[in-house]
Amino acid sequence: MVQPKYHVLICTSCRINGTQKGLCYQKGSVDLIQSFMQEIEDRELSGEVVISNTGCFGICDKGPVVVVYPEGVWYGNVSEDDVERIFDEHFEGGTPVKDLMI
Amino acid sequence: MVQPKYHVLICTSCRINGTQKGLCYQKGSVDLIQSFMQEIEDRELSGEVVISNTGCFGICDKGPVVVVYPEGVWYGNVSEDDVERIFDEHFEGGTPVKDLMI
Repeated sequence: MVQPKYHVLICTSCRINGTQKGLCYQKGSVDLIQSFMQEIEDRELSGEVVISNTGCFGICDKGPVVVVYPEGVWYGNVSEDDVERIFDEHFEGGTPVKDLMI
Repeated sequence: MVQPKYHVLICTSCRINGTQKGLCYQKGSVDLIQSFMQEIEDRELSGEVVISNTGCFGICDKGPVVVVYPEGVWYGNVSEDDVERIFDEHFEGGTPVKDLMI
């Protein structure tokens, strides 16, 4: 299996019973995931940066929550306005965005 | 944020539009995730081993797919019968289960 350079997990509050209900979802995480996907396309990073939507991480008050592996960086209260910075500084610059980390 | 020792991602085929539809789901990944959760409880590993359900990883023919970070180990065709081995060998023994890796 070829590893992506960055695997980005974004909570969209999907539950294992098939419903999508929760704080990250309510706070716009579906729009957020689409912003990440658009940015991957714009920067031609597909394969290098892979996005997965997830269920709840259990820290809903900090949502929308975005987790980046392999480093295991946890970002909280992420908005669409933060997406460009995360790509510039983290995915292309190699340095996680400190002030978004939780 | 306190990192879990192992973060286990299990595809349950949840889509960002809220529906749960896909091969991992059809192949019993919801039962699989519940087996992982039960095993965490039985072995008192909550906090150390954290499970997240996810959307599609794009390698549906190898489903159910289970990804383990921080190593970035990708397991394929995982069944409930494999759960005990993954805990014994990987999470408690420290060595990924080679013949399940993809």
